[in-house]
Amino acid sequence: MREPTYADVVAASDSIRPYVHRTPVFTSTHFDDLIGAEIFFKAENLQKVGAFKARGATNAVLSLSDADAERGIVTHSSGNHGQAVAYAAGIRSIPAVVVMPHHAPQVKVDAVAGYGAEIVFCEQADREATVRSIQADSGAVIIHPFNDPGVIAGQGTASMELVEQVPGLDAIVAPIGGGGLLSGTSLVGMHHGIDVVGAEPEIVDDAYRSLRDGVRYGATGQLSVGDGLLTGIGALAFAILSSHGRRVLTVTEQEILEAVTVVAARMKLLIEPSAGTAVAAIVRYRLQFAGRRVGIIISGGNVSLDLLAGSGDR
Amino acid sequence: MREPTYADVVAASDSIRPYVHRTPVFTSTHFDDLIGAEIFFKAENLQKVGAFKARGATNAVLSLSDADAERGIVTHSSGNHGQAVAYAAGIRSIPAVVVMPHHAPQVKVDAVAGYGAEIVFCEQADREATVRSIQADSGAVIIHPFNDPGVIAGQGTASMELVEQVPGLDAIVAPIGGGGLLSGTSLVGMHHGIDVVGAEPEIVDDAYRSLRDGVRYGATGQLSVGDGLLTGIGALAFAILSSHGRRVLTVTEQEILEAVTVVAARMKLLIEPSAGTAVAAIVRYRLQFAGRRVGIIISGGNVSLDLLAGSGDR
Repeated sequence: MREPTYADVVAASDSIRPYVHRTPVFTSTHFDDLIGAEIFFKAENLQKVGAFKARGATNAVLSLSDADAERGIVTHSSGNHGQAVAYAAGIRSIPAVVVMPHHAPQVKVDAVAGYGAEIVFCEQADREATVRSIQADSGAVIIHPFNDPGVIAGQGTASMELVEQVPGLDAIVAPIGGGGLLSGTSLVGMHHGIDVVGAEPEIVDDAYRSLRDGVRYGATGQLSVGDGLLTGIGALAFAILSSHGRRVLTVTEQEILEAVTVVAARMKLLIEPSAGTAVAAIVRYRLQFAGRRVGIIISGGNVSLDLLAGSGDR
Repeated sequence: MREPTYADVVAASDSIRPYVHRTPVFTSTHFDDLIGAEIFFKAENLQKVGAFKARGATNAVLSLSDADAERGIVTHSSGNHGQAVAYAAGIRSIPAVVVMPHHAPQVKVDAVAGYGAEIVFCEQADREATVRSIQADSGAVIIHPFNDPGVIAGQGTASMELVEQVPGLDAIVAPIGGGGLLSGTSLVGMHHGIDVVGAEPEIVDDAYRSLRDGVRYGATGQLSVGDGLLTGIGALAFAILSSHGRRVLTVTEQEILEAVTVVAARMKLLIEPSAGTAVAAIVRYRLQFAGRRVGIIISGGNVSLDLLAGSGDR
């Protein structure tokens, strides 16, 4: 599979512009004072489907040939990528199947169904086999959540916008799960000479160790409140991030939850724990960011409101 | 006391511009589809101090003569106005005293103190007497939360921005407690030929009844989750809103809470129940708004995160 380039991000940006939001960038005196830096929050929680995933899926779907597109698309995801694929299929009026585990939260099932996709339920362990079986039957194209050049190029458009909106950035921090977002961000950072740093929950730190050791490790199999970041780093992302010499910062579950609640209390923005991971990283490693202009990709806002319960005001 | 005019709102806008945010305007496919209208959310929850109150207090404080200003300012408020007065005093580097009840939440005490104001605690029933006593001793100027022409003109600047940001509005909906925000909004609406509608919790419906009957009633004395809206409508606001023929829509406590949680779940924005009142009004009375371009002043975002607990995802 071919590695995407910065030119692919530029092309993706033109291609998806009519279908995704140019999300706003927020600042916060609280965080600026705390970090001793200028922090710019790129609010992809306000993106279509509530997450940056709308960018990559839309770009991948728009890139399909007419012949491929008419056979439809399929993916497995109980999270934001599932909604994004359903949304993107709707743009092109093609059929989409989203494979979800039986125990997927009803709110996520409803969201995918609301975008008009067909849902096929299966056991968690059977989801890849189920996708392959659907593909074999229908000829549908699999839209992978991150190990896909079109998806990576699409995710990079968030940072492309950010550098247009905020001149002179020194660094951009983004969460890493499979690495679609971080590798797309890295392509943009490379072009502009901006440091790009990943943020990952300590308990699922495979990307941290992979980039440290130069070995692509699998997922730890642990759970994290950053439920979008459980997967292992993908091959394409590993190749791009390794060749760019990128690094990852890890944070604890408690630091992630604290970040989510402080952003809600101070900035009045609802962000999901995966996004809180990036915020927690600049707080914990603030000396690395002091005195710099730092962008953060607030990757999404799809959080259970109950998570904020009992956290009190800050 | 002189009634403020639209010209005062224009002057306030010039005066406070360096000190307040030009807050963004958001749209939501969910609410557009639900109402059958185009809804524009003016996000004053992202304003300084987390509420539109920063506008009015800043304008009032900037309007003081140097001689008045140097004696300082005083107000009583355990809510957003207290923070706004503390913030505004800081802009002009003058002393501020905020009288708060002993039982005020620590987070609000900390916020006021954080802006550098002095806090004087008293019994809830003694707060007006305490303010007057401080005024008598120090000569400090009282900044009333709503019954003040400078405060009303300042609050109107939110709508002034909104009509610049969104051309062709047919209506603007804003919550009403004392009426500072709604009367400032009404001045802007009158100038531009835009319908202006208040929103009030049913359980504290004095403004609804006052404008219906042409009689200024006092506060009901009841409590509402819309804790910024408990006060009775002020004399200036009553005069302005009556002469403009404005009306108020009432909503239930449950409808308000539902609005707060749906805005969080769908729009990823944290809004306070007072702001939720305006959202609930367009939902409940949607037939009044169908087919129109409607602005909503999201008055603030200072909500206890615990309020969202147990509400589940939507």
